[in-house]
Amino acid sequence: MKIAMLGSGFIGRFYADALLGQRSKDQITSIYSRREESARKFAEDYAVPHFTTDMLAAIQHPEVEVVCISLPNNLHEAAVLACCAAKKAVICTKPLGRNATEAKRMLEAVEQAGIFHGYLEDLVYTPKFNKALLSVQNGALGRILWAKSRETHPGPHSEWFWDKEQAGGGCMLDLGCHCVEIARSFIGKDIRPVEVMCWADTQVKPIDAEDHAIALVKYENGAIGQFEVSWTFRGGMDLRDEVMGTEGTIWINNFLRTGFEMFTTGKGADYVAEKAESNSGWLFPVGDEINDLGYNHMFTDMFHSIESQQPPRESFYDGYVVNAILDAAYKSAATKQWEPVQLDIWRGQTGVTSGKALTDYDAQYYLIKEEITHFGARKLILKDKQTGQIIEKTIN
Amino acid sequence: MKIAMLGSGFIGRFYADALLGQRSKDQITSIYSRREESARKFAEDYAVPHFTTDMLAAIQHPEVEVVCISLPNNLHEAAVLACCAAKKAVICTKPLGRNATEAKRMLEAVEQAGIFHGYLEDLVYTPKFNKALLSVQNGALGRILWAKSRETHPGPHSEWFWDKEQAGGGCMLDLGCHCVEIARSFIGKDIRPVEVMCWADTQVKPIDAEDHAIALVKYENGAIGQFEVSWTFRGGMDLRDEVMGTEGTIWINNFLRTGFEMFTTGKGADYVAEKAESNSGWLFPVGDEINDLGYNHMFTDMFHSIESQQPPRESFYDGYVVNAILDAAYKSAATKQWEPVQLDIWRGQTGVTSGKALTDYDAQYYLIKEEITHFGARKLILKDKQTGQIIEKTIN
Amino acid sequence: MKIAMLGSGFIGRFYADALLGQRSKDQITSIYSRREESARKFAEDYAVPHFTTDMLAAIQHPEVEVVCISLPNNLHEAAVLACCAAKKAVICTKPLGRNATEAKRMLEAVEQAGIFHGYLEDLVYTPKFNKALLSVQNGALGRILWAKSRETHPGPHSEWFWDKEQAGGGCMLDLGCHCVEIARSFIGKDIRPVEVMCWADTQVKPIDAEDHAIALVKYENGAIGQFEVSWTFRGGMDLRDEVMGTEGTIWINNFLRTGFEMFTTGKGADYVAEKAESNSGWLFPVGDEINDLGYNHMFTDMFHSIESQQPPRESFYDGYVVNAILDAAYKSAATKQWEPVQLDIWRGQTGVTSGKALTDYDAQYYLIKEEITHFGARKLILKDKQTGQIIEKTIN
Amino acid sequence: MKIAMLGSGFIGRFYADALLGQRSKDQITSIYSRREESARKFAEDYAVPHFTTDMLAAIQHPEVEVVCISLPNNLHEAAVLACCAAKKAVICTKPLGRNATEAKRMLEAVEQAGIFHGYLEDLVYTPKFNKALLSVQNGALGRILWAKSRETHPGPHSEWFWDKEQAGGGCMLDLGCHCVEIARSFIGKDIRPVEVMCWADTQVKPIDAEDHAIALVKYENGAIGQFEVSWTFRGGMDLRDEVMGTEGTIWINNFLRTGFEMFTTGKGADYVAEKAESNSGWLFPVGDEINDLGYNHMFTDMFHSIESQQPPRESFYDGYVVNAILDAAYKSAATKQWEPVQLDIWRGQTGVTSGKALTDYDAQYYLIKEEITHFGARKLILKDKQTGQIIEKTIN
Repeated sequence: MKIAMLGSGFIGRFYADALLGQRSKDQITSIYSRREESARKFAEDYAVPHFTTDMLAAIQHPEVEVVCISLPNNLHEAAVLACCAAKKAVICTKPLGRNATEAKRMLEAVEQAGIFHGYLEDLVYTPKFNKALLSVQNGALGRILWAKSRETHPGPHSEWFWDKEQAGGGCMLDLGCHCVEIARSFIGKDIRPVEVMCWADTQVKPIDAEDHAIALVKYENGAIGQFEVSWTFRGGMDLRDEVMGTEGTIWINNFLRTGFEMFTTGKGADYVAEKAESNSGWLFPVGDEINDLGYNHMFTDMFHSIESQQPPRESFYDGYVVNAILDAAYKSAATKQWEPVQLDIWRGQTGVTSGKALTDYDAQYYLIKEEITHFGARKLILKDKQTGQIIEKTIN
Repeated sequence: MKIAMLGSGFIGRFYADALLGQRSKDQITSIYSRREESARKFAEDYAVPHFTTDMLAAIQHPEVEVVCISLPNNLHEAAVLACCAAKKAVICTKPLGRNATEAKRMLEAVEQAGIFHGYLEDLVYTPKFNKALLSVQNGALGRILWAKSRETHPGPHSEWFWDKEQAGGGCMLDLGCHCVEIARSFIGKDIRPVEVMCWADTQVKPIDAEDHAIALVKYENGAIGQFEVSWTFRGGMDLRDEVMGTEGTIWINNFLRTGFEMFTTGKGADYVAEKAESNSGWLFPVGDEINDLGYNHMFTDMFHSIESQQPPRESFYDGYVVNAILDAAYKSAATKQWEPVQLDIWRGQTGVTSGKALTDYDAQYYLIKEEITHFGARKLILKDKQTGQIIEKTIN
Repeated sequence: MKIAMLGSGFIGRFYADALLGQRSKDQITSIYSRREESARKFAEDYAVPHFTTDMLAAIQHPEVEVVCISLPNNLHEAAVLACCAAKKAVICTKPLGRNATEAKRMLEAVEQAGIFHGYLEDLVYTPKFNKALLSVQNGALGRILWAKSRETHPGPHSEWFWDKEQAGGGCMLDLGCHCVEIARSFIGKDIRPVEVMCWADTQVKPIDAEDHAIALVKYENGAIGQFEVSWTFRGGMDLRDEVMGTEGTIWINNFLRTGFEMFTTGKGADYVAEKAESNSGWLFPVGDEINDLGYNHMFTDMFHSIESQQPPRESFYDGYVVNAILDAAYKSAATKQWEPVQLDIWRGQTGVTSGKALTDYDAQYYLIKEEITHFGARKLILKDKQTGQIIEKTIN
Repeated sequence: MKIAMLGSGFIGRFYADALLGQRSKDQITSIYSRREESARKFAEDYAVPHFTTDMLAAIQHPEVEVVCISLPNNLHEAAVLACCAAKKAVICTKPLGRNATEAKRMLEAVEQAGIFHGYLEDLVYTPKFNKALLSVQNGALGRILWAKSRETHPGPHSEWFWDKEQAGGGCMLDLGCHCVEIARSFIGKDIRPVEVMCWADTQVKPIDAEDHAIALVKYENGAIGQFEVSWTFRGGMDLRDEVMGTEGTIWINNFLRTGFEMFTTGKGADYVAEKAESNSGWLFPVGDEINDLGYNHMFTDMFHSIESQQPPRESFYDGYVVNAILDAAYKSAATKQWEPVQLDIWRGQTGVTSGKALTDYDAQYYLIKEEITHFGARKLILKDKQTGQIIEKTIN
């Protein structure tokens, strides 16, 4: 594919590293940045033939087949509308909008224009997540009860993240959008998120937006999504997912404990591991950040989908649902109550129940629990179906 | 010390193993159980000279110096009152009461009787917790922002836990009482818990009480305690704590990942690791369950305190506070709102504020963040004190 | 690049997955297999336009630019010679030869023919290894003292590995070739391996070759390489590297503990994690086997090197050195002595000494050790330069 | 028990912490140190009623029932002989002697005197080791093939360790004695150690003895013990054991990865974790060093054994066997060959063979390996009993 990259900042460079890092057949044809110096530098670093400070020039560049939006949150919508006008396929970084209203307008615009739209939620494309999701979908964990994602680190790299107007929020919008889509994917993207309870506070930083937040998202089938996000964590980037079902559990650690551990006195060299807060002592680098964060698999899905004229795994519709959940979280943090998720557009199942089924032990009893005791006997906890009485029964 | 043990079940035996396991100078002088067969068996197994089915006979036994209550939750209060009448020191398993009303009556009774009272919350006496708490108190993590404890497993061993009337609740009372005291200890036991937000559900088991719950506890200084508890977890006993402050973080894993890993085909033997759900494949035993769960250090604190006529680290007052927090959690699960913690008795600080202090960079700016870039430069994110504008500044 | 693949077995398919898995500009143009059915199947699965049971037809195919040898060990040499005759670039799986004599003939042949030659030692291209090597080369660990690699699993998938004649050896040749090159890379590929001490035995399997071996490789600068290899390990594929220097250490776990942990009762599904020996209990899948085992980065190096007419990081010369070290290991296992590494061709440094330097404390003493005591004092262990006497000195 | 402690240094204090740390019925009655100041300080710190600089006075103290030797290696023998003369039970720190000749004299002396003798090898009494050994003895790992122990750290605390004359050797004697007994215990203490291959070098420190060593110990049944020891490791104290059998494997980490992880900027406090080389960054404290290193369980075994007039798990005989193995290791390091273990006294089995048994598949074939393929089929590797031919067979 021939790509126009909008934005030359941290995430734009990460995307470019992913797009060009291995033996790729894709190429960046045009780079747009607000500052000419940045555009020129990016073009040099990644051998991009065309650079510009005119966003439309990049989008409308005749060779460009797909536009990749890597701009601050407040600039997504204008860029999307320009892609609609130019009838170019568009893929947009996360979060899609600063809120569901913005996201919904973008979704409706791309659908009306009939263009391809992809939502660049990389963390549901990490190799570990991909394999975990397959296990979940194959039933290895049984019925999913709870899924949590945690993303905490010492704060983002660019100034605009810290400005509530440009960013649209604080760590909850920046990091929570990842977590929400991870939990939603494990629970089932066709299961409706119903309501949200959220705590958020500005515990440390001199900013208007929240720097720490925790929320629960209840789904129609009774499953619970949870996120923990912060810009005040010390120790690097903590990126962990957990999912728990009736038949099992999965724990994923994407960053700080991945089987790569280094101790250095720091005497020998100035080497600094990425996002580590120190260059001595015990450090925990990640092997291949690009691949481990899902960028490779995400772009593969996007471009294969464009070529095969299929919808990608993550579209603007998903971005819209995520924004709607986060809107409810912000509202809940203010009202201190569970707040309903407002979804004007819902394309999944409706009226789903929990699927909870009581397990019969025999005609008289339900089985509560079975275990092997220290002495090797089978011990059962049973409940009488009529009386509700709970008894123990040991079978040697 | 000479001890009367009330109750010969799972926890009573655990306590006896701790009391007698190493070269101890303490001894169990009398064992009371409701069933004579159980009392006799316990007396044989632990060489206890006196056994009885009459609770008062055990408490009033002339040699007994301290009474250890290891009974189901609904029997704690009567036992405590009997100790008060006999003027015997009393230590009681967790939770203290089925609710704060019960716990408050017990607290008032022991204080009126003037007897020693200890609350057997073993998980704030584990070796890892003890050392972590010392680090926190020494300031190694800075100002504490958040503390979480998670305890999940496939459900308790005895039938009475599953009966809401006897137990007083489900997994939240059974496991949450541990978690609440762990988080409270990290945040500061003199900091008042203010309000609680809780989700609880009966997702899997055929019982009246909850089998899965998550809650947030807000403290007066803005710190957040969190617990995650369940009787539906598959994979063993998951017992993890995390605490996060402005200067660092601590992660503790008490059970499933402690540096002991075993793979077995299961062909060779029938060996079953404790609480593992399997006897083949990868298993994760714990080295010394008694010590790792804190029992040794807990009894050492209790008996040293009795001998030195000092209050122990955990008293009935702490048990009361924990019950009050859990009462608010149950209420919140029903009302779907943050619920205040009702503390008729509060002996800690009042009017504590967060201690949040903005960091000056210079006369004009606050410091938001400082980092070392890939290129070795120092990059600062600053906020103008007057205008609120946020800028980046790089220093080579 | 346009590739002819020789061999359609397990490793050929792994290579094909790597070559074609992401958005690659490379393609497999021809597939050769001894069995037509296998060649046809491979061609279908990977959309290869040409398949054949005639090895020369694949090599000489006019579009083919590079030949990838994925054949059993005893067939490498003939394939290499055919590439020399056809003047086609050649890359060969590991080990290069069954012994150094074979490997030397292949090295001399490709050099005489003037063709590009790459040695497909994937495990020095894993993302973790790449980053670790960079740290080592930057000096983060100081002077390297010891490097170990361990590869053990329950045995290879194809029958020819178990036949000593075809394979040339047992687990030591099959797995030790990886380990030797890993340790050699950390210690420095220009440092001459001098002698080897090895234990090898056939402890379990009904085969002629060894199924378990451990060896030490001494380098000219005094550094020690170590390998532990086995086909009798139970529990999956254990793939760990350690390297230790005067200023630090690195531990890499490539497979069984990479931050991905799953428990499943096995009730829900028949999902089997790769190379796990079980489909229930605690399982430890790897996220992206292809990338985590280094295939992507290895082929990128190979093809970039061909395009830029540079030697790759791993050439037939490296394959030859590895075979020479393993030859000494086999000899040592028989003679029960350290055996010299016979290297008729050596292109690295010679006469390298250890670089060990005593650390002066002052004019009178060498510093042996410095530590901070429990009481916060600095404690020094010093050695008198003249008398050799060792003293303690504490500085408050 | 009433104990005389000989030696008030690092290990004497560790022992005292273990003896007195919990609710112990044992007490230290007398402390001997060469320096009066040290003896007095120890007596104060541990409330010891009697202190002396006369070793005999401590041993012969009328109340003393057992003497605990915590002296430098070169002083063990004289202390043991004094205990023999006084007919007092004696327990001695590790290693027993500086070599097997010394150890043998001590063994013969205590046996002739008829006194109780215990060898204080704490690392075979750690909670994890105890449980692992039980699993091994129960057959959970099948036939043991290999057992490794690794102990490396930045060097000991006291000056005499660094002096070859007083210590008798370097890190191999100091740390290897632990490792040898760990591996020997897993393989079976009644299985004769036959020969040793060892590499040892002084890679970093300005000392006469070795600061890094690796060895293999071959047992009569074909099992292999391995140790890796060093005083040049950076990063704390690395204490890991591994054992591998035909049916499974066990991995133990005693120190650096035990489920306790802390990050601190170091701003908040000067807290230093034990033996960590840093007080900031990621630190890995141990919960309860005394218990986790086995001291509690070791003294319990010793004193119970004295009271019940049974031999302890570790006696001077074990100390002698360990010294004999290390003597062979030192010799092998010099001769560069496998060296026989000289055991004038051997009390275990003789003539033990490997117990290797070929597994029949059917009348014609042996089974080499069975696996489940990606496609769910059972794949077998078989060997013809007559022809030796190896074939694959797939069963759907």
